[in-house]
Amino acid sequence: MHSVTAFAPATVSNVGCGFDALGFAIDGTGDEVTAHFGGHGVTIDGIAADGGRLPRDPTRNTAGIAARALLAAIGEERGVALMLRKGLPLASGLGGSAASAAAAVVAVDALLEARTPIDLLIACALEGERMGSGSAHADNVVPAICGGLILVRDSHPLDFLHLPIPEGLTAVVVHPALEIETTAARALLGDTIPLADGVRQWANLGALVDALHRSDFDLMSRALVDAVAEPRRAGLVPGLDAIKRAAADAGALGAGLSGSGPSLFALCRNRQIGDRVAAAMTAAVSAHIPGVPQTYVSAVGAAGARVVATCVS
Amino acid sequence: MHSVTAFAPATVSNVGCGFDALGFAIDGTGDEVTAHFGGHGVTIDGIAADGGRLPRDPTRNTAGIAARALLAAIGEERGVALMLRKGLPLASGLGGSAASAAAAVVAVDALLEARTPIDLLIACALEGERMGSGSAHADNVVPAICGGLILVRDSHPLDFLHLPIPEGLTAVVVHPALEIETTAARALLGDTIPLADGVRQWANLGALVDALHRSDFDLMSRALVDAVAEPRRAGLVPGLDAIKRAAADAGALGAGLSGSGPSLFALCRNRQIGDRVAAAMTAAVSAHIPGVPQTYVSAVGAAGARVVATCVS
Repeated sequence: MHSVTAFAPATVSNVGCGFDALGFAIDGTGDEVTAHFGGHGVTIDGIAADGGRLPRDPTRNTAGIAARALLAAIGEERGVALMLRKGLPLASGLGGSAASAAAAVVAVDALLEARTPIDLLIACALEGERMGSGSAHADNVVPAICGGLILVRDSHPLDFLHLPIPEGLTAVVVHPALEIETTAARALLGDTIPLADGVRQWANLGALVDALHRSDFDLMSRALVDAVAEPRRAGLVPGLDAIKRAAADAGALGAGLSGSGPSLFALCRNRQIGDRVAAAMTAAVSAHIPGVPQTYVSAVGAAGARVVATCVS
Repeated sequence: MHSVTAFAPATVSNVGCGFDALGFAIDGTGDEVTAHFGGHGVTIDGIAADGGRLPRDPTRNTAGIAARALLAAIGEERGVALMLRKGLPLASGLGGSAASAAAAVVAVDALLEARTPIDLLIACALEGERMGSGSAHADNVVPAICGGLILVRDSHPLDFLHLPIPEGLTAVVVHPALEIETTAARALLGDTIPLADGVRQWANLGALVDALHRSDFDLMSRALVDAVAEPRRAGLVPGLDAIKRAAADAGALGAGLSGSGPSLFALCRNRQIGDRVAAAMTAAVSAHIPGVPQTYVSAVGAAGARVVATCVS
């Protein structure tokens, strides 16, 4: 049986002042999709490591929807069957929906040898992501596919850019043993924000982009503040302030919710500090939230989705 | 009589997506303040070119308040008399209050040979600006004093940065024969904005800063959009859409209100296009607004406030 397996990484979105606009890939965890020819349209053969909770119906599954969108977009009539292996926990704030969708389109594209343009792959993955999290978050999907540190300037039509990444910039990501549904977290935000909070947010995001270009870690630290989403979502993660303080005390440039939580990220100026911050954040999370947290330390802006296995038999 | 005269330039603030955060100095017009010793505290000897409309009371005059703040801040007990020459029209959106305040503190500082740190000069000028326009706009005052293209990351405490300016980047500024009071224009904004507009604004400002670093004029053009203030103020300037279209058709990267209007700015990738855009915008303004507009073409980020004459007699 000819099959292709693709991997897509976890992504941190809503980075500090970059709500709905800024995201980056990390290495160390992600989702995998194996695609082979078979059946009609898209079918889902199986899903591993989801605790039996994700729908097998391809019209209601992130990976299935993304794959269906791709087949439709390129006019492919052969059937494709998918096997999904969730490396990412559900409702974790690590871009799991985006990773499943990204891995699916990359696997199916490779299986079909379709060489689909990247913008179309992204558009199809966004279809899946919309199902998975209630709305289409290009700030997860684009880094899941392209890797890097991505600023989504506009979603309609999609316009994104790769931001520069200062040498050594390291992300710490801690996933507490909690689940937060993106749709519920989004409802906390409401539809409007104070103008003054908006001004703080765009001034900080402008400064953050400048800091990335100049490798100015001090400015980056001052700019890594979320004036909009995190204050309204802080109640979702017990001990959030203490965890962020622990990160800062250990030398982090800044910290906050990854996506809509419960995962937390911190940015650090090098790997050594990252390791220290990881230990401090993990301890602080354990002190406030029952269960065993998972912790990752990664360069900011890891590689995006790619084929990891091709089997011909 | 020993006197010092300082000039401070006009400034464009609220640049596109940079509402309350982004401003730059232009050359060709500004305010002048002459300071000499005399009297008690700060007195205002005279004001030229204001049509008799600005208050001579130093506690109610932008330049007077800024000078008083400086004397208080450095513990100066000698009296200082000011003469203000308005090069900038009142309520023009060209940072006139900021220019008067900036010229005042620079002139007084030089007269006193006080070598006041720049942050303190800015703080004192902001006191004056607060009187002049109803709130303290660091995005006018900082470029009026320092020159350049300035991103104000935070006002309390003040934290600003000089953004890079791509070679050739040219500003066109057209002042229609209208007046718009900043306080009235601000009232149009309300206290809240839709979250979705906020996301557009910070995504665009992040992209604009990236574009400035890369000299990416195409990205700059896509990012030079104000999703927040201009849509709510568009009614203040008759023909705004047509004027902006004329600028774009003539090759501008983007255009919009300067400050809270009525002046309009456009950014252009070089001086030659700037001259063409200036002609097109001036014609469009004349077609929609009675009276003779004033037009300036300048490098973006001209020099800031400086002493232009020192008289010892």
